[in-house]
Amino acid sequence: MRSVNTQPAAQTKRPITLLQKSINKTVSVRLKSELEYRGRMSNADSYMNLILVDAEESENGAKTANYGKVVIRGNNVLYVRIEDRL
Amino acid sequence: MRSVNTQPAAQTKRPITLLQKSINKTVSVRLKSELEYRGRMSNADSYMNLILVDAEESENGAKTANYGKVVIRGNNVLYVRIEDRL
Amino acid sequence: MRSVNTQPAAQTKRPITLLQKSINKTVSVRLKSELEYRGRMSNADSYMNLILVDAEESENGAKTANYGKVVIRGNNVLYVRIEDRL
Amino acid sequence: MRSVNTQPAAQTKRPITLLQKSINKTVSVRLKSELEYRGRMSNADSYMNLILVDAEESENGAKTANYGKVVIRGNNVLYVRIEDRL
Amino acid sequence: MRSVNTQPAAQTKRPITLLQKSINKTVSVRLKSELEYRGRMSNADSYMNLILVDAEESENGAKTANYGKVVIRGNNVLYVRIEDRL
Amino acid sequence: MRSVNTQPAAQTKRPITLLQKSINKTVSVRLKSELEYRGRMSNADSYMNLILVDAEESENGAKTANYGKVVIRGNNVLYVRIEDRL
Amino acid sequence: MRSVNTQPAAQTKRPITLLQKSINKTVSVRLKSELEYRGRMSNADSYMNLILVDAEESENGAKTANYGKVVIRGNNVLYVRIEDRL
Repeated sequence: MRSVNTQPAAQTKRPITLLQKSINKTVSVRLKSELEYRGRMSNADSYMNLILVDAEESENGAKTANYGKVVIRGNNVLYVRIEDRL
Repeated sequence: MRSVNTQPAAQTKRPITLLQKSINKTVSVRLKSELEYRGRMSNADSYMNLILVDAEESENGAKTANYGKVVIRGNNVLYVRIEDRL
Repeated sequence: MRSVNTQPAAQTKRPITLLQKSINKTVSVRLKSELEYRGRMSNADSYMNLILVDAEESENGAKTANYGKVVIRGNNVLYVRIEDRL
Repeated sequence: MRSVNTQPAAQTKRPITLLQKSINKTVSVRLKSELEYRGRMSNADSYMNLILVDAEESENGAKTANYGKVVIRGNNVLYVRIEDRL
Repeated sequence: MRSVNTQPAAQTKRPITLLQKSINKTVSVRLKSELEYRGRMSNADSYMNLILVDAEESENGAKTANYGKVVIRGNNVLYVRIEDRL
Repeated sequence: MRSVNTQPAAQTKRPITLLQKSINKTVSVRLKSELEYRGRMSNADSYMNLILVDAEESENGAKTANYGKVVIRGNNVLYVRIEDRL
Repeated sequence: MRSVNTQPAAQTKRPITLLQKSINKTVSVRLKSELEYRGRMSNADSYMNLILVDAEESENGAKTANYGKVVIRGNNVLYVRIEDRL
């Protein structure tokens, strides 16, 4: 017998687990206010607070050329795109 | 005797249960900021954080042609449309 | 003696109870972003996450003709209009 | 001796208590998005989720003529105006 | 010895205490959406849910002449201005 | 041995502690909606609810000349600028 | 055996830890409403409430030349860019 509500198929990863398994991959993070950050994700916590390194900022698709180390607050994240193959 | 407040008809699924039963189905996810993502939902948690694979982005109805693996943060989800038959 | 603060008139239903009593009725759900969904509500939880089936979307009053099964996230719901007689 | 912080004058009602004492009165509910609903409030919970019956919708002051039974989600309520005398 | 973090100067009132000490004073309440309500505050809870009586509404500074009893939901309050001398 | 995560350098003050140490100083408070309030901060709680006295309001930089005692709700505060020397 | 979900690679720092390790570094903080603050971060808590000193404000990229000590409320922070080398 299995619990219907809490057991998705075991071979898939839950969203937060996937993020934490993707550390050191290149990701693109879209924030609520048209901002997008692309870089290597050096860490992530369960709230989706993220650290990006060598990050490049773009706004409305135009690169605004900012590089560096950025701590992104999770509550403004729309999504995280994982570019590397898993 | 049954509890009025907490027992909907047993033959229907609760919203989160339905999502977790729909893993590997094709879904369309609408976010608050006019963005829509369509792809195979590979996982979902109770907060509606979702993983989409082979995802295609569209904004205001126009496809903006992005594919890949995306972790969508639940708090910005407006709805999840489940396309496959159940 | 009755508790003033927590006991509304017994013959009325509390909002969440009314929703759960309205399963299988036709409802219209208005979301924050001008979107409205109309369909049969097949389930609802206490957070107002809802499942609509045979749902029809309209935006700013114009039908945008989408049908299917939709899980709506409760935190973006403005209201649920219950069309069937109770 | 009385606790300064938690005991307002006893002859006044706290906001949620006043709402629950106002069941079956006519109220106008203003939502964040310029929408206003006026009708008889048949129930309210502590989160300000409300049920209105015989409700009439107006937007930017213009009646948009919708009647029926509406469950309004509390987190989008700006205020509830109580029209009946108490 | 005193606790640095939790003990502001004793002769000043904490924000919620000041509100509850100001019951029956005239206040102006500004909401997020350019709305302002002015009236006698007949009660307030710790969430800043407020009851105003003989309330007058103005929007963008122009009085829109609504009077009555209003329950304002705390989460949309920007500030409460207390007009009476204390 | 020290805990890495919870012990910033001891000689600096945490944000809420700094606010509560700044009672009676002149501060400028910026709210989300272009509003700014400047006055003497007579109290603050851990949620950043604040009391300003002799407060002056400005909107988009233009003074709108309102003075008095204001309770500002913390959740709409963008920042508090502390003008006095510490 | 290690816990998949809660143990990212040990040599990387979690987002909040990185912030607290960056005290006294120069950071740029972007808020939701086009505002950006740059200065020395003298403290940070787990909610991302921050203290900036010698802070310079810019809006839409144009410096608006404000300096001083600022307490920024965490919930409106989009991101914190750490300029110093680590």
